[in-house]
Amino acid sequence: MDNFTYHNPVKLIFGKGQIAQVGRDIPKGARVLFAFGGGSIKANGIHAQVVDALGQAGLTFVEFSGIEPNPRYETLMKAVELARAEKLDFILAVGGGSVVDGCKFIAAAIPFEGDCWDIVAKRARLKSAVPLGVVLTLPATGSEMNAFSVVSREETGEKLGFGSPAVMPRFSVLDPESTYSLPPRQLGNGIVDAFVHVLEQYLTQPADAPLQDRLAEAVLATLVEIAPKVMATPPDYQARANLMWCATMALNGLIGQGVPQDWSTHMIGHELTALYGIDHARSLAAVWPGVVAVRREAKRAKLLQFAARVWGLTEGSEDQRIDQAVAKTRAFFESVGVPAGTIAAGIPAEAAQLVSARLSERGGLPLGEDGAIGAAEVRAILEAAA
Amino acid sequence: MDNFTYHNPVKLIFGKGQIAQVGRDIPKGARVLFAFGGGSIKANGIHAQVVDALGQAGLTFVEFSGIEPNPRYETLMKAVELARAEKLDFILAVGGGSVVDGCKFIAAAIPFEGDCWDIVAKRARLKSAVPLGVVLTLPATGSEMNAFSVVSREETGEKLGFGSPAVMPRFSVLDPESTYSLPPRQLGNGIVDAFVHVLEQYLTQPADAPLQDRLAEAVLATLVEIAPKVMATPPDYQARANLMWCATMALNGLIGQGVPQDWSTHMIGHELTALYGIDHARSLAAVWPGVVAVRREAKRAKLLQFAARVWGLTEGSEDQRIDQAVAKTRAFFESVGVPAGTIAAGIPAEAAQLVSARLSERGGLPLGEDGAIGAAEVRAILEAAA
Repeated sequence: MDNFTYHNPVKLIFGKGQIAQVGRDIPKGARVLFAFGGGSIKANGIHAQVVDALGQAGLTFVEFSGIEPNPRYETLMKAVELARAEKLDFILAVGGGSVVDGCKFIAAAIPFEGDCWDIVAKRARLKSAVPLGVVLTLPATGSEMNAFSVVSREETGEKLGFGSPAVMPRFSVLDPESTYSLPPRQLGNGIVDAFVHVLEQYLTQPADAPLQDRLAEAVLATLVEIAPKVMATPPDYQARANLMWCATMALNGLIGQGVPQDWSTHMIGHELTALYGIDHARSLAAVWPGVVAVRREAKRAKLLQFAARVWGLTEGSEDQRIDQAVAKTRAFFESVGVPAGTIAAGIPAEAAQLVSARLSERGGLPLGEDGAIGAAEVRAILEAAA
Repeated sequence: MDNFTYHNPVKLIFGKGQIAQVGRDIPKGARVLFAFGGGSIKANGIHAQVVDALGQAGLTFVEFSGIEPNPRYETLMKAVELARAEKLDFILAVGGGSVVDGCKFIAAAIPFEGDCWDIVAKRARLKSAVPLGVVLTLPATGSEMNAFSVVSREETGEKLGFGSPAVMPRFSVLDPESTYSLPPRQLGNGIVDAFVHVLEQYLTQPADAPLQDRLAEAVLATLVEIAPKVMATPPDYQARANLMWCATMALNGLIGQGVPQDWSTHMIGHELTALYGIDHARSLAAVWPGVVAVRREAKRAKLLQFAARVWGLTEGSEDQRIDQAVAKTRAFFESVGVPAGTIAAGIPAEAAQLVSARLSERGGLPLGEDGAIGAAEVRAILEAAA
């Protein structure tokens, strides 16, 4: 186990009916930017719940809607201008990971001096950020309990991330009932997103960290167990609650402390999203089979552990067990409606060369827990990910 | 899963060499109470490391030594008087759970108006506390990453707890090398303490919380796996690191969110410590067999899950599996040098009546996750714990 520092001061407020209390955790007298995405929170009543809660707390707020999936710099800068003009000093993000990621960028950009794109493009150091709270409506990204954000720029076709303790939410409200109106596609995406977040922190090399391994396996096994109940209708409260808790635990930093981390599936997947507009989770399911194909030897020990502990595969040769674990994982993704591999995801063959060149040009290589994924390996991954 | 709020802002600084940086996380200009127990931190060099780190950070500090195992109110009040007289405004606790618990009381008592014993006896609400940092030298109690403290009063023979977000450490430094000089008795106690902390939050009733269950099982299985390596000489860095991380995760609040909790083993054990001076962990191993004997039906489903997932017991009748799981757990305690049951622990038969009466008189009953342990059940537990 390597040395680490873990500091996660996000206050997590979990359960049904908790949105009504959201005003209590916002400083009295704050001027709030109430930011959200499309009209879904109006249709499902969450917008009205938030308006009521802010009103009961006597808070002044200004709404900003239209933060899109894979939030765009161009959109977010409009919110920054609004917040600066209206002197807003607290941000309440209501939505899924894209709204939360977008609001982290807004929080960082409002007091930022200079070109705000430098926050992601140059990972400029943040002196401060506007405080942020979250009402989460889509369990998936873990953004509600971490310091990270990914933002896209339409003008350049880039999708880039940044992270800073300054943009960690002060609180996040997770009401499982807020997921009841989600379409199956978003539920399936959320399950796959959480699952691959764990794999990025787990499927590397043994690091004498048995607790981190078992914590990761706990999230993976729970996602496998609850997935059919999550996808069932009518919505099941406990299944949705467990999904929300799994998705948060998958990427609140805890399971990855002191161990190697991969993230190559994400980095390659971001490029597919930027190029072809594919959903984030679908990009992960498209790329992951290629990563385990190309990186099979480097990841052999953990692939065998994953096979045994998550999929119960203990019979047959090592290679058979690994093949079965990969097949079961692909089938799991497809069981929640997410295509596995590039062909099923509709990624054209040109992507292998294009993505490799884009990552290379931007200095985004090498990737992987041991830095062994260069331009040739990115091509090989996308070719093998069929 | 029940609603919950989880907020743990403790900054955890983990790994070898981290004590040298301890001055960085204390506010500049702070006047520090450097509090510790006996002479062990002088013998093993940690005292010198802390003095160096505080000196390099230019911090003024005053030492207070002599905080004993099961820290005494009478001792702690001397530190409170010293801190008030010297106008100390930061506490650095260097030691195990007793020093940390003691310093939480000191932190709360310094600004407290009125009789400081009310902090524990009446669970008086705290308006504020002096900020606290920790250098942990004994993995066991989890106090380094939670809001709780247990204090004893010699005059009355009481051992009572309190908790407040105000006394959560601002940071805790966990250097596994600081455990190298621990005697086997303290290592074994630490393993058992952490194990029983998890059992108190896990071995209750199913609550549709599969992730919390698996997180708890992850800590239990890891403790079983690493225990022989922890007890081996010469000290093994990775084993000690994993023990430290397990002990913190066992009681930082995470695994117990949204699920029923028991704590009857602890409440009864505290009385045994107060009456007979038995080590905290040894009181838990003495009492636990009685709790599972008396509460077997209420805990049946989770006992079977514990048997299967932690001990791999899937053959035989339900009762056989439960019996085997209890036997394996007792054997596990004894494998690290901690006697299981009251007879091996040297608890006299009179304890059953005495402890029941003491808990009853103080209004400490009923106990257990469902409030089903009254005075008669406490007696039955201690009689059955042989």
